[in-house]
Amino acid sequence: MKRESRLVRWIFWTIVVLALFLLGFSIGWFAHRSNAISHKHKPSGDYLKEFLDEMQTDLIRDHLRKFTRLPHLAGTEQNLKYAEQIMKEWKDFGLDSVEMVPYDILLSYPDKSQPNYISIVDHSGKEVFNTSLAEPVPQGYEDISNIVPPYSAYSPKGHPQGELVYVNYGRTEDFFQLEREMGINATGKIVIVRYGKIFRGNKVKNAMLAGAKGVIMFSDPADYWAAGVQPYPDGWNLPGGGVQRGNVLNLNGAGDPLTPGYPAKDYTYRLNLEEGVGLPKIPVHPIGFHDAIHLLKNMGGQIPPNNWKGALNVSYKTGPGFTDDFKSQKVRMNIYSNNQVARVYNVIGKIRGALEPDRYVILGGHRDAWVFGGIDPMSGAAVVHETVRSAGKMVKKGWRPRRTIIFASWDAEEFGLLGSTEWAEDNARLLQERAVAYINADSAIEGMYTLRVDCTPSMHTLVYNLTKQIASPEEGEEEMSLYESWHKRDNWTNDRDAPRISKLGSGSDFEAYFIRLGIAAGRARYTKNKAKERYSSYPVYHSVYETFEIVERFYDPTFRRLRAIAQVRGGLIFLLADSQVLPLDPTEYANSLRKYATSIAGMAQAVPEQMETYKVSFEPLFSAVENFTAAAGDFHEHLRTLNTEDPLQVRIMNDQLMYLERAFIDPLGLPGRPFYRHVIFAPSSHNKYAGESFPGIYDALFDIENSADPEKAWREVKRQISIAAFTVNAAAMTLIQPA
Amino acid sequence: MKRESRLVRWIFWTIVVLALFLLGFSIGWFAHRSNAISHKHKPSGDYLKEFLDEMQTDLIRDHLRKFTRLPHLAGTEQNLKYAEQIMKEWKDFGLDSVEMVPYDILLSYPDKSQPNYISIVDHSGKEVFNTSLAEPVPQGYEDISNIVPPYSAYSPKGHPQGELVYVNYGRTEDFFQLEREMGINATGKIVIVRYGKIFRGNKVKNAMLAGAKGVIMFSDPADYWAAGVQPYPDGWNLPGGGVQRGNVLNLNGAGDPLTPGYPAKDYTYRLNLEEGVGLPKIPVHPIGFHDAIHLLKNMGGQIPPNNWKGALNVSYKTGPGFTDDFKSQKVRMNIYSNNQVARVYNVIGKIRGALEPDRYVILGGHRDAWVFGGIDPMSGAAVVHETVRSAGKMVKKGWRPRRTIIFASWDAEEFGLLGSTEWAEDNARLLQERAVAYINADSAIEGMYTLRVDCTPSMHTLVYNLTKQIASPEEGEEEMSLYESWHKRDNWTNDRDAPRISKLGSGSDFEAYFIRLGIAAGRARYTKNKAKERYSSYPVYHSVYETFEIVERFYDPTFRRLRAIAQVRGGLIFLLADSQVLPLDPTEYANSLRKYATSIAGMAQAVPEQMETYKVSFEPLFSAVENFTAAAGDFHEHLRTLNTEDPLQVRIMNDQLMYLERAFIDPLGLPGRPFYRHVIFAPSSHNKYAGESFPGIYDALFDIENSADPEKAWREVKRQISIAAFTVNAAAMTLIQPA
Repeated sequence: MKRESRLVRWIFWTIVVLALFLLGFSIGWFAHRSNAISHKHKPSGDYLKEFLDEMQTDLIRDHLRKFTRLPHLAGTEQNLKYAEQIMKEWKDFGLDSVEMVPYDILLSYPDKSQPNYISIVDHSGKEVFNTSLAEPVPQGYEDISNIVPPYSAYSPKGHPQGELVYVNYGRTEDFFQLEREMGINATGKIVIVRYGKIFRGNKVKNAMLAGAKGVIMFSDPADYWAAGVQPYPDGWNLPGGGVQRGNVLNLNGAGDPLTPGYPAKDYTYRLNLEEGVGLPKIPVHPIGFHDAIHLLKNMGGQIPPNNWKGALNVSYKTGPGFTDDFKSQKVRMNIYSNNQVARVYNVIGKIRGALEPDRYVILGGHRDAWVFGGIDPMSGAAVVHETVRSAGKMVKKGWRPRRTIIFASWDAEEFGLLGSTEWAEDNARLLQERAVAYINADSAIEGMYTLRVDCTPSMHTLVYNLTKQIASPEEGEEEMSLYESWHKRDNWTNDRDAPRISKLGSGSDFEAYFIRLGIAAGRARYTKNKAKERYSSYPVYHSVYETFEIVERFYDPTFRRLRAIAQVRGGLIFLLADSQVLPLDPTEYANSLRKYATSIAGMAQAVPEQMETYKVSFEPLFSAVENFTAAAGDFHEHLRTLNTEDPLQVRIMNDQLMYLERAFIDPLGLPGRPFYRHVIFAPSSHNKYAGESFPGIYDALFDIENSADPEKAWREVKRQISIAAFTVNAAAMTLIQPA
Repeated sequence: MKRESRLVRWIFWTIVVLALFLLGFSIGWFAHRSNAISHKHKPSGDYLKEFLDEMQTDLIRDHLRKFTRLPHLAGTEQNLKYAEQIMKEWKDFGLDSVEMVPYDILLSYPDKSQPNYISIVDHSGKEVFNTSLAEPVPQGYEDISNIVPPYSAYSPKGHPQGELVYVNYGRTEDFFQLEREMGINATGKIVIVRYGKIFRGNKVKNAMLAGAKGVIMFSDPADYWAAGVQPYPDGWNLPGGGVQRGNVLNLNGAGDPLTPGYPAKDYTYRLNLEEGVGLPKIPVHPIGFHDAIHLLKNMGGQIPPNNWKGALNVSYKTGPGFTDDFKSQKVRMNIYSNNQVARVYNVIGKIRGALEPDRYVILGGHRDAWVFGGIDPMSGAAVVHETVRSAGKMVKKGWRPRRTIIFASWDAEEFGLLGSTEWAEDNARLLQERAVAYINADSAIEGMYTLRVDCTPSMHTLVYNLTKQIASPEEGEEEMSLYESWHKRDNWTNDRDAPRISKLGSGSDFEAYFIRLGIAAGRARYTKNKAKERYSSYPVYHSVYETFEIVERFYDPTFRRLRAIAQVRGGLIFLLADSQVLPLDPTEYANSLRKYATSIAGMAQAVPEQMETYKVSFEPLFSAVENFTAAAGDFHEHLRTLNTEDPLQVRIMNDQLMYLERAFIDPLGLPGRPFYRHVIFAPSSHNKYAGESFPGIYDALFDIENSADPEKAWREVKRQISIAAFTVNAAAMTLIQPA
């Protein structure tokens, strides 16, 4: 053999050897790497589309039909039956586990043998007029038993008799106007108040503070009647015999009135009824406007200002009492309702997270309804049901989210958000350490106009990105995204070219999760055109006319709007549960905080001379907002350089994102409201429904004009500014790179 | 070529190719793997030994000498100077960052121009005896200025004059005995109380509740004198002119009295002085026993029971007032101290964690001293200083702990744990989400006998394992471990063959971390022989005689005891910061919970007929303890199968371990004490120093015998059992595998 040839051969074999080695090395390396990547979880973009596409209008229709046939008030057998059915179906759909979680809580029902009503009695005590004992039952439901007559849940028993005073919406400012401008004292009177503007429990609280001995609430057509629409069943307006039920508690987030702060289990200590949280001390009863006319028409006293006048053909005189001809007549309330401890059932279903089973994304909504719950809550529950079905189908196909998803069917929401609050109390430690987000699923529709989203600022970006991937449900908008459809109907402001997103208030089951525990939260539903439709919620709200048919015939005949809502709610939990980096955006929080700080400082600036006198400065708050903005910006930068291959680094940043909302919780709570602990968002003390930003400062400013001691009142404002500034600074610290 | 030969060659080359491929594959695989392991952090066993061995007795001596030359009361210039020096040295030692963190808090000082004292005045008001204005200054310190005279910090100014009543230790039971058995009413009197048994602030609170108008506290030799030991400087006993300083607040964990719940920053809202938390409303002053004799010797009234008698040559009569011959004499207190807002400084040093920078292990102890702080706190601060030096040296060598270590030199501990509490308030959100453990470093020595450890049950196993790796500091025990030395001197009980570990009480800087925030905590120091040495703390406690020399000459001439304490404290933070799996043991918590439940139920069983009448059952608590025990056992099993190669799985289990202590926090706090939130451990309302298990139940049971309404009192017991049972159940849930 020649040397050359040997050299060539040697080179050849060296190359072969090297090549083989490299091949082996590469395969070894990547075998390990792909192992690591598979560990890191499969990319989920494709699955999102599949998940959203799987949701079907027909099935949502079927779910809604199925769960609205019978009344299913909290604590009744029928509501347990629906719970059992939901549990079974969720299991069939493919969830990893579904369980029933009971609590024994205080509920309130009318006495079946002694109906509640209101009378006008003459001088001899004879009843000359009685309000109806029930709403006229809608067609097709004539044979249904167990329709609870309209009542105000948790009203004490009682028979107050006396003169009526009309108090408009019963807001704090209405009572001030009544007392200060009209010189009318409601002490010892029965007040008659129209529904709307604020939560009915606040109306009752205000009436109690004013010394009233009873409260009558009615739905005025001015507030529950859409122009040009027929009353149900020919349209979706409230008939004159229709009545809004509802609880009249002032819980401020306490949950079960007898076990504030703790879950209502068998061994749990219970307060005596007299000690119960938020229970009204005077009888309360609701009526429809046909009955209201009889109570209002002969009222005497002053002609009130125009904004006190509703749409009935009466003068809306304030009283007290009736006009001359009817002077001797009085009003008597006859209330026989009972408070009783009863068992309610949450249904909790789970899909275990593949990589981070200890991170929870929750989709929860209530199941209990005042009667059939056609809109409230079953339009929402049907949407959840379809979401669970779609998620289950994906699981059966082999998909599994990075994080754990929890689906909840809450009980007893109508009695003060009780089922969801008890579960939050029961699981507070787990939720505090592990919950990434809570998406609420109450009524999916309250109008026919466009999307409505209320959420924490850190979800803004996510909501926009998601709705761009969902189709508009509106006819003629087949090529349009939900985002575009929403945007063209409800742009935010002149400053911001994007669809409007609102603050979270309260009045639904997210409350304990967001306002007590500080879990990022949001809700979405289809809504009315707020600019034109001025009525509160929707006309048949909490009446017997909330049927399956009202949705099928008027609100969403194609069920495409409900599907769009299912896709929004479902898409949110999908992306929150499955994205490697949590889709939460601190820079949006920074923007919102600046807006809120400016707004609340502006409110105080209404009295600049007092600001001067009492040395009130918002400077610490603005400075804190700047700190937060800088920290959010740095965090955003850092996120861009994140090594997504490193599971610990990803987890660390995700923890910062998850705990950001938690940082706004003040463990001491808002003044006098230990369970409202979110410093940035909570209802004001004057209306549970509306979310205020910086509620502590807001309430303190609200109290300024009513305080006998302005120095003290301003000190409270200063204290609240200090707390807000500290909280925002502390939240900023959580965004800085650890250690 | 023959076919055979070709076959052989073919086989040969196939084997070569396969072998090469496999070699390459293996190298590729393991290259990746070792990459993963290096990411996972180097094993740290060897480093622990190096870290502990680095700590030197001579250097601890030097540190102690350096920082005890001058008085350094909180809020004084000298204490800032020491802070600056510590900051500089910690930087030099090699920490990643060291910063000074100031707060502006309420402090209290005597008026330099008007000294505090107590007089006996005759009928004409002439002072016939005055207590000393200062302690005799120890040799070698004669030229030192700024020795603050003995006083009770936060005493209001005042000049109460009246009759004395002797109230023994001033415990709740002492006042009961006084009022109920001896029929003596302290209303309007000045009470004289001996130091010891309970926190002095509780004595003052009890005196206020009893209606007293002033409090005089003295150190009785029965409580501050060791048999056969000379007074300082010839021994370590308290001279007759020595006095215990101390604050007399009842903060219950609030921190700065003017900013409860929030850090005392420049923009922080401050309460008015009258609203301040825990401030005594009556003058208080401390004296030594030479002065006490003069006040006690002529007292009239009843001869008290023997356990009220101290070791002075007086009869310890209760009063009120003096005996016949001295009847016209009264006692007058002359107190001129001022409360003032002043700036204090914490020094915070950090070593950034290599893999989990967002997990914090804290070693904190105070720097401020009443005078020189020879024992309290500088024996502890010297130990921290040496620990920092050793850790810094390791960092310089390339070591870096898995988690972040934070070293803290707290200010104003003597004024109510203020520096540490303000920092905890400032960083509450970060600590809540990220703190793994807090190790306290107050005085490192209070006796010459053996080790004393107070810690959360989940640290028991860690403490035992660690002390087996540390040498006994005692002469003649050169071959013995600290564990063995400790074990032979202080075995736990008959049930358990291991050294005794105690519950954490309060009275030092761990309070906000453990009892408010629920961070696993522990402390270690060298202690006396409790069985034989009955005096409280140590004789010269809080006097001017706490010098460097008392440590060098009596407590630890070789400084080996202090080094052992440095190794215990340092070893704890080392292992907590660097172990891959957190060395916390839930099964030990389960064992302790069972013991505590049995013990508190036994306390209630003292009155079995009342338990029956009011239907009180501890069954839910025992059942919860069983649930916890089962969950801890399962967790322990699961830990054995943990895939330690998977960073996410390790993190998830570590999070469960970290958050276990947090699960015992009740956000609503104990009754009336919003900042004491740990349901398992807190001081009782009757003595801040001692840690009670199930303090809510304990306090409720304590109140039974004093309640005018036993039904109501027992309802409170039941409520507290319910809360305890719920909390233990909730903690158990955190140990179950997530989702």
